[in-house]
Amino acid sequence: MSAAPGAGPRRAGFDAVFRPRSIAVVGASSSAEKIGGRPVRLLRQHGFPGAVYPINPGAGQVQGLPAFAALADLPEVPDLVVVAVPGPAAVAAVAEAGQLGVGAAVVLSSGFTENGPDGAALQRELTRSAQESGIRVVGPNCLGTFSVRERAIGTFSIALEQSLPDAGGISIVSQSGNLGSAALSLLAPHGAGLARFVATGNEADVEASDAVAWLATDPDTSVVLLVLETCRDSARLTAALGRAREAGKPVVVLKIGTSEAGQQAALSHTGALAGSDKVFDAVFARYGALRVQSLEELVQVGAALEVVGRRRVGAQPSATVVAASGGFGVMMADAAARHGVGIHPLGEAAQARIREVLPLAATANPVDTTAQVSADPGVYEAVVDAALSDGANTTVCLMLSMAMDVPRMRATMVEGLRRVTDRHRDRAVVACLSGPADAVAELRGLGIACFPSVDAAMAGVAALGRVERLREAPATADAAVEAAPLDPASWRNEATARAALQAAGLPYPVAETVGSADEAAAAAERIGGAVALKILSPDILHKSDVGGVALGVRGAEEARAAFAAITGAATSHAPDAALDGVLVAPMVGGGTELILGTTTDPGFGPVVMVGLGGVFTEILGDTVVRLAPVTEDEARDMVRSLQGFPLLDGARGRPPADVDAVARAVAALSRFAVRHQQDVTEIDINPVLAGPRGEGAMALDALIVPRPTQHEEVPA
Amino acid sequence: MSAAPGAGPRRAGFDAVFRPRSIAVVGASSSAEKIGGRPVRLLRQHGFPGAVYPINPGAGQVQGLPAFAALADLPEVPDLVVVAVPGPAAVAAVAEAGQLGVGAAVVLSSGFTENGPDGAALQRELTRSAQESGIRVVGPNCLGTFSVRERAIGTFSIALEQSLPDAGGISIVSQSGNLGSAALSLLAPHGAGLARFVATGNEADVEASDAVAWLATDPDTSVVLLVLETCRDSARLTAALGRAREAGKPVVVLKIGTSEAGQQAALSHTGALAGSDKVFDAVFARYGALRVQSLEELVQVGAALEVVGRRRVGAQPSATVVAASGGFGVMMADAAARHGVGIHPLGEAAQARIREVLPLAATANPVDTTAQVSADPGVYEAVVDAALSDGANTTVCLMLSMAMDVPRMRATMVEGLRRVTDRHRDRAVVACLSGPADAVAELRGLGIACFPSVDAAMAGVAALGRVERLREAPATADAAVEAAPLDPASWRNEATARAALQAAGLPYPVAETVGSADEAAAAAERIGGAVALKILSPDILHKSDVGGVALGVRGAEEARAAFAAITGAATSHAPDAALDGVLVAPMVGGGTELILGTTTDPGFGPVVMVGLGGVFTEILGDTVVRLAPVTEDEARDMVRSLQGFPLLDGARGRPPADVDAVARAVAALSRFAVRHQQDVTEIDINPVLAGPRGEGAMALDALIVPRPTQHEEVPA
Repeated sequence: MSAAPGAGPRRAGFDAVFRPRSIAVVGASSSAEKIGGRPVRLLRQHGFPGAVYPINPGAGQVQGLPAFAALADLPEVPDLVVVAVPGPAAVAAVAEAGQLGVGAAVVLSSGFTENGPDGAALQRELTRSAQESGIRVVGPNCLGTFSVRERAIGTFSIALEQSLPDAGGISIVSQSGNLGSAALSLLAPHGAGLARFVATGNEADVEASDAVAWLATDPDTSVVLLVLETCRDSARLTAALGRAREAGKPVVVLKIGTSEAGQQAALSHTGALAGSDKVFDAVFARYGALRVQSLEELVQVGAALEVVGRRRVGAQPSATVVAASGGFGVMMADAAARHGVGIHPLGEAAQARIREVLPLAATANPVDTTAQVSADPGVYEAVVDAALSDGANTTVCLMLSMAMDVPRMRATMVEGLRRVTDRHRDRAVVACLSGPADAVAELRGLGIACFPSVDAAMAGVAALGRVERLREAPATADAAVEAAPLDPASWRNEATARAALQAAGLPYPVAETVGSADEAAAAAERIGGAVALKILSPDILHKSDVGGVALGVRGAEEARAAFAAITGAATSHAPDAALDGVLVAPMVGGGTELILGTTTDPGFGPVVMVGLGGVFTEILGDTVVRLAPVTEDEARDMVRSLQGFPLLDGARGRPPADVDAVARAVAALSRFAVRHQQDVTEIDINPVLAGPRGEGAMALDALIVPRPTQHEEVPA
Repeated sequence: MSAAPGAGPRRAGFDAVFRPRSIAVVGASSSAEKIGGRPVRLLRQHGFPGAVYPINPGAGQVQGLPAFAALADLPEVPDLVVVAVPGPAAVAAVAEAGQLGVGAAVVLSSGFTENGPDGAALQRELTRSAQESGIRVVGPNCLGTFSVRERAIGTFSIALEQSLPDAGGISIVSQSGNLGSAALSLLAPHGAGLARFVATGNEADVEASDAVAWLATDPDTSVVLLVLETCRDSARLTAALGRAREAGKPVVVLKIGTSEAGQQAALSHTGALAGSDKVFDAVFARYGALRVQSLEELVQVGAALEVVGRRRVGAQPSATVVAASGGFGVMMADAAARHGVGIHPLGEAAQARIREVLPLAATANPVDTTAQVSADPGVYEAVVDAALSDGANTTVCLMLSMAMDVPRMRATMVEGLRRVTDRHRDRAVVACLSGPADAVAELRGLGIACFPSVDAAMAGVAALGRVERLREAPATADAAVEAAPLDPASWRNEATARAALQAAGLPYPVAETVGSADEAAAAAERIGGAVALKILSPDILHKSDVGGVALGVRGAEEARAAFAAITGAATSHAPDAALDGVLVAPMVGGGTELILGTTTDPGFGPVVMVGLGGVFTEILGDTVVRLAPVTEDEARDMVRSLQGFPLLDGARGRPPADVDAVARAVAALSRFAVRHQQDVTEIDINPVLAGPRGEGAMALDALIVPRPTQHEEVPA
């Protein structure tokens, strides 16, 4: 047994999975219906050009191919082994393949973690075996893999029963075989072409992230559709998304488990805790992946991204709507408003051009061509050209449903669109039609993104715009923040926390720590105006609950009394608490309340959060989370994406707030969280007051929560 | 020419449109492609059993039928005349038909209001002609009408080219022919059956509302799908919706023009101003119509309503999800959360029953049957029965996409579902599958509502629940409020407005009107605590702007000073304003701020509005509008449907607010607005403070805006 002559170096990992020169099927069955028979049948049916080796000790032939008793009997070391034998035999097959130097195995067999503790033990054995030999393993308990151009098939999916999908630039990566299959079948009517498919199942070795990383450098893949139920290794996911982003390949991701009930179900289903859904938003935002909410949106946006290529809808998209029906025009304008797509009136020149050919048309926007186009479809080209030549909107959205059903109109209009799209090669055009399939294909051939409904079309415009914004956003935050230990004194009490955060760039007012009523009086006089007194203690988290806070204190006498009152109250309510004195800080009023904070995701590390205070956070949950650190630009985008942002932006005659100062504070806090992530697990600053533009922001509180002490793992 | 022998009384209006015994086509063409040829061809092709009379003066025969030169030449007076001749000839044809006593005409011809001023004049002539003779006219410029069972066709729609839709209980009413056609073609894959279709076009005589009113009593119609671009006659619309509601027939309505851009487009398209979109929400809420946002949702919910019949998903729906894939279960739970559908764990007994047949299943909710059902589809019945027998959720939602594609599984599972749905005849079951078409039809036959996607299924459950709530809601507000004039003094200033509203049941604190500094001092002392002083003048709307308000005034001396200050400021800022004195009112603090108000819709009359104060109204536009008057129950529902309602409901440790007191205030205000609608056009009460539960609410301001004086129309 040797490498095939002239075949070059062995292929490994996803090279072997997606571009194998030879495939062995362990557990190959003569019955083309069985899980071990289907890959053989599909490979032959779709004409895989390399060698196919059925492994079946009891059979001389399998589906007309000579069968072998064992991998070791093959005339060459195959690039890929597809494994369809049950649990323990599958582990043995992978071990043997690894020893032989096979590049990769796809384990279709079930009976692993999904089957309880025994299966989990078996899966650990599989993982160990893969790690020992270095063979990469997809699965187990997975639907498998295929490549369209190479006709390389390592799956038993019934989706390939009739034919392979058309070849194209979309690759699908899914943990769930069912959801991957569903995406595949939804993609077909969009006329979009497929490059690769992989369902990673239990992920004993290879994860969905690894597939994304490989596809990032795959010349045949232009768009990646990713379906995630969980994330087992956060670093692999972020690295993979980072590679795709660097390669300029959009990743559209459906991460399920957004709801509490969904997360519970995902936990019981995958056995892996997924982490906060807002953290996934943060991950996808940072690494430029577009998150969608349904399989339909996934394939619609994926198909659109494949076809538009370098054409653009604009990072802040607005659309000129062209419809042959007033009603559809109105619906498109409504849908545009729902999805945040602008609808601006066309310029007068463009409107005049349209009126020239369609005297009865409504020309502002939506353009209602009326039934005139049906009488004279030749004028359609001039209408769309006028719309595309005008600068009022960034894209043009065509309602084509009915016209494409009438052959006479269709031919003329498509020819017109061919010339128009050729003249405007940088502009993306979006069309709404649900068929016929060959019309969709023809329009896609012109670079036109087709969506099956009014709502999907405008959601699609918005999504394409988001992809452009994600592309434009800076790829990484500020230069990496170096880790540094934090003096444990910093989290002792509010005063020490304020000092540490102030040193890191957070804006705090002058405040003093005092140890006696006299010192309190002096401090109150030095600070002037109204002051707040707060008890300082490492043992008292909720100061108000023990009477440890006095607000609106004015002058020496009041300060003296307040000092006595709060230290007295603290002593009587929390007799065992160590008291570090009292903080005297100025009362700061006015401005808009925000809350800032950080937490630490077990996988993705420190994240920074900003929200508007009061009802926005409490009732509406209006907060935004990003991976730390963030740049000031990113922080500004965070603030701008808050639902209540108009409150900071001069709504209803309010003075616009100093958003830049808030952004500086968020960025500084995020760097602090990263620098000290070994020591700090959470920070809360509530409130931060944003003053009017140019007047800064002011933090009025500070809580640093240290990481729980780690148990020593090395025995003394 | 006479009535057909034994044919009974002539049919008129929609009886003639939808159940004609004979149809004449004016402008009948020998070319089956022309607008005048198509109805003849469709009537013959689909086997209309009555007489068809082509009217064409130049032809002996039309498509094999003897042609007549004029309506007067026919052997009988036809029930229905379809008109396909151009503008002026169409008007003449309708006039002739009216004189002959024809029951109804459908005018397909265009060239009326949509064609500018000359067309509009022609349309006015058509309207006049119809009114003179009493013939009812559908159109002009419309796609026309058809009835499926009667095979009565008055349309040139290409949708009927291949076949008539299956007969069923859904009727479609659309102003726009294009949107009506689109709804029709979207309905087909749902396997839903159609009763009637009408596109009312320019509505020279008959409006969409008239069709709804007729369908309300049509025994063949069980669900009405209504597509509205505008509403020309609000009273006809509310009367029609009221009739459908009384008849227990759900009306699902797509009212387009929800956005500003959409409303602009609708105005230019229909020439009719649609009014505030929130008022339409109010109209549909009052008359029990379910509003949807897209054509897809319209037909999905319509098809579901047709099939579930008397089965129920629950007015506050929650779902037990049964999926054969963990991923789909998670997605369904996510979608349920998005649409406000509960996902509660099954009871232990039901879970045990499921484990009995599926040892590896996840049984809580979602139920993940895993691939075990594929091996033994016979157990599916027990699983669904366990889910339906359990009381944890009001409905069961089945993911059936993949199973229905496998004939072996499908047959067994459908048989199981037949028995289960038969055992649970009051429970609606919802399924998610996008085909195959015959499986959808089979499941519909069992009363199962089928939706093509996960999101549509859960949106559908939510919509069916809303329909049940709309059914349960009281049909009308309190007994009609009698109109009464309002003393013009009431809107003179805040004090008189407060008095009028207080008399009507609005809760105001004691307040006094004073004319001198001494009186102010005395009033402040009588009221006690902090008071507010406000200038009273019919000429000063914005009191603060002229320095006419003093807040937090305590005691006689401060009151005296404040009186002088604000009367002085008012005099210097508004020297020409008539001053009525100063209002002295107690400062009321605490509680939650709301705003209450009324406005008058030009069509639908007085509407009442409630919103949460501050950012909720200003930034989020979180207000709810209902037609006035409302009952206290309706008012409570209004408050509960506010986005910020948790603020009133004890969120985050707040005391629950006195929602009942707020509801009483809203109801009282709504009755006031109705009683005095001849005199009052708008009322603003901002703020109203809701105290803790049991402690009432307090209005702190009042503005009554009178109706502008009408110009006398009769010359003296």
